[in-house]
Amino acid sequence: MGEFELIDRFFLRPGRPAAEGVALGVGDDCALLAPTPGQQLAISSDMLLEGRHFLPTVDPDSLGHKALAVNLSDLAACGARPLAFTLALALPAADEAWLAAFSRGLFALADAHGCTLAGGDTTRGPLAICITVFGEVPTGQALLRSGARPGDDIWVSGTLGDARLALEALRGGLALPPAMLASVRERMDRPVPRLALGQALRGIASAAIDVSDGLLGDLGHLLRRSGAGATLDTVAAQALLAARRLPDAAALPDAATQLEYVLAGGDDYELAFTAPADRRGDVEAAAATCATPVTRIGRVDTEPGVRLVGDGARADRPYRSFDHFG
Amino acid sequence: MGEFELIDRFFLRPGRPAAEGVALGVGDDCALLAPTPGQQLAISSDMLLEGRHFLPTVDPDSLGHKALAVNLSDLAACGARPLAFTLALALPAADEAWLAAFSRGLFALADAHGCTLAGGDTTRGPLAICITVFGEVPTGQALLRSGARPGDDIWVSGTLGDARLALEALRGGLALPPAMLASVRERMDRPVPRLALGQALRGIASAAIDVSDGLLGDLGHLLRRSGAGATLDTVAAQALLAARRLPDAAALPDAATQLEYVLAGGDDYELAFTAPADRRGDVEAAAATCATPVTRIGRVDTEPGVRLVGDGARADRPYRSFDHFG
Repeated sequence: MGEFELIDRFFLRPGRPAAEGVALGVGDDCALLAPTPGQQLAISSDMLLEGRHFLPTVDPDSLGHKALAVNLSDLAACGARPLAFTLALALPAADEAWLAAFSRGLFALADAHGCTLAGGDTTRGPLAICITVFGEVPTGQALLRSGARPGDDIWVSGTLGDARLALEALRGGLALPPAMLASVRERMDRPVPRLALGQALRGIASAAIDVSDGLLGDLGHLLRRSGAGATLDTVAAQALLAARRLPDAAALPDAATQLEYVLAGGDDYELAFTAPADRRGDVEAAAATCATPVTRIGRVDTEPGVRLVGDGARADRPYRSFDHFG
Repeated sequence: MGEFELIDRFFLRPGRPAAEGVALGVGDDCALLAPTPGQQLAISSDMLLEGRHFLPTVDPDSLGHKALAVNLSDLAACGARPLAFTLALALPAADEAWLAAFSRGLFALADAHGCTLAGGDTTRGPLAICITVFGEVPTGQALLRSGARPGDDIWVSGTLGDARLALEALRGGLALPPAMLASVRERMDRPVPRLALGQALRGIASAAIDVSDGLLGDLGHLLRRSGAGATLDTVAAQALLAARRLPDAAALPDAATQLEYVLAGGDDYELAFTAPADRRGDVEAAAATCATPVTRIGRVDTEPGVRLVGDGARADRPYRSFDHFG
């Protein structure tokens, strides 16, 4: 199977109508996008490498899902609606079973969000996946990192720390009951981009970011861009670990380790966002319309840095977020 | 040096005004682009891997240039004006001298074409560079692969085959005089995207493609998308090897090998395009306004496939174009 047959068989999908706004997709030198008048184009790009962003044992269907999901999560954090994506793929070999499963996982998520594959590149090499995603957001309404103000509430969507728990278990660092491992591994392999919530928060949230490298690190970026600091409630944070609600919760590591996974676990792909305290009802209503749980975990204040209050915070733990060159 | 310091030091470039159309660049979850009303956005994505697309010995300044140049070449083939790009970069280590040279080469070319770095991603891993580039083209005026008609002339810009000549010499497959090697190596390491020509050909060319995998292969894509075939003049083609005009031209391999490099060399990043025969004067005037040489090398006809006429064509040579999985 040559390069062009590979593209034809697994990625071209003839007969499917191009999404609105995509004038020309795969098969020319460039894709052509025609954004709706009055909308800005939101763009994000992420590269995933084997051994760095996913384990060699990941199933390719989940990998196809995750490669697009981590990019869609950036659109979610801007409040953008997905439109299209490009895929650049380096593969050690043209393995048909792998390609069939990878493209199935990729397109299942793309189709669920009306996001069209508009172009790309394939090459032989160590497994690497680079996706660039395009979304639309009404001009001036994108959620940015820079809008948080002292007194704003700090919220997070969904749950945090379970992907890190799965990673530690798969690396052999701790033992988990099989049912719990399956549950948290699903969380690591198939993150759910919070697209509906991001769009519902336009006009309500003052700032937003997606949590990919760990809550404290990513919230830190948001706070620095906003010229502010924060105080977080560790009791509320600790409850964000979904595995605590599983029947085998007694098998979990100690509370301080759980808190570390929540605060600095990474690979969560949830939204952390801020909103004025008088918009609590609007935040809860927005979350309810898209059936996405949200939890209020702290408050923006003027002093730079993040302070932890409540049980479980240990000053001797550094809570370092993920840094690829740290 | 951590990931975020790396981005700050080598890629952020504070104080530079964002290009027109780029509402928000590096530093948030997404970049925001606002295309000019009446324009479509042209998008292309390419991944470059060490050992596959460049030699480990390439100097990083040239690599920065080339990584963007190969993407800009796709915009050129659509007749688009560059606007912005994203960069996803996997690096074995945060090497300051390497990063300084790479970013210098990258931004020199970007600045020359008013193309703003709008976002990206850095990670640790085997050296890989994925750039996605964005350009603007007036709605309906993009040069496509599908517009060639029987009777149209076939043209190519610049010169072909010299990058392949350099590659063969650097791999030890043939010996070249030092001055000739330096000249053709420059052609391999620092391709010149034909952006001005692509834009000048809007409304004149009937179809266009950029020559990256070899002329016969890429022209074949254009012809298949146009439902046509072609006859090429090998005498005109052979003259496209720039090294033939160098003082040491007697050191070149035989004529049949030269023709093979021209027809199937790869890494040229020139434009191959078609235009009606009654637009020859317009093609030459467009080429003259941007000081880019163009050569007429054949004619589109109805019979599928490409026929070679003239001296030097050898039926026993397959003229295979580059296929990453072939």
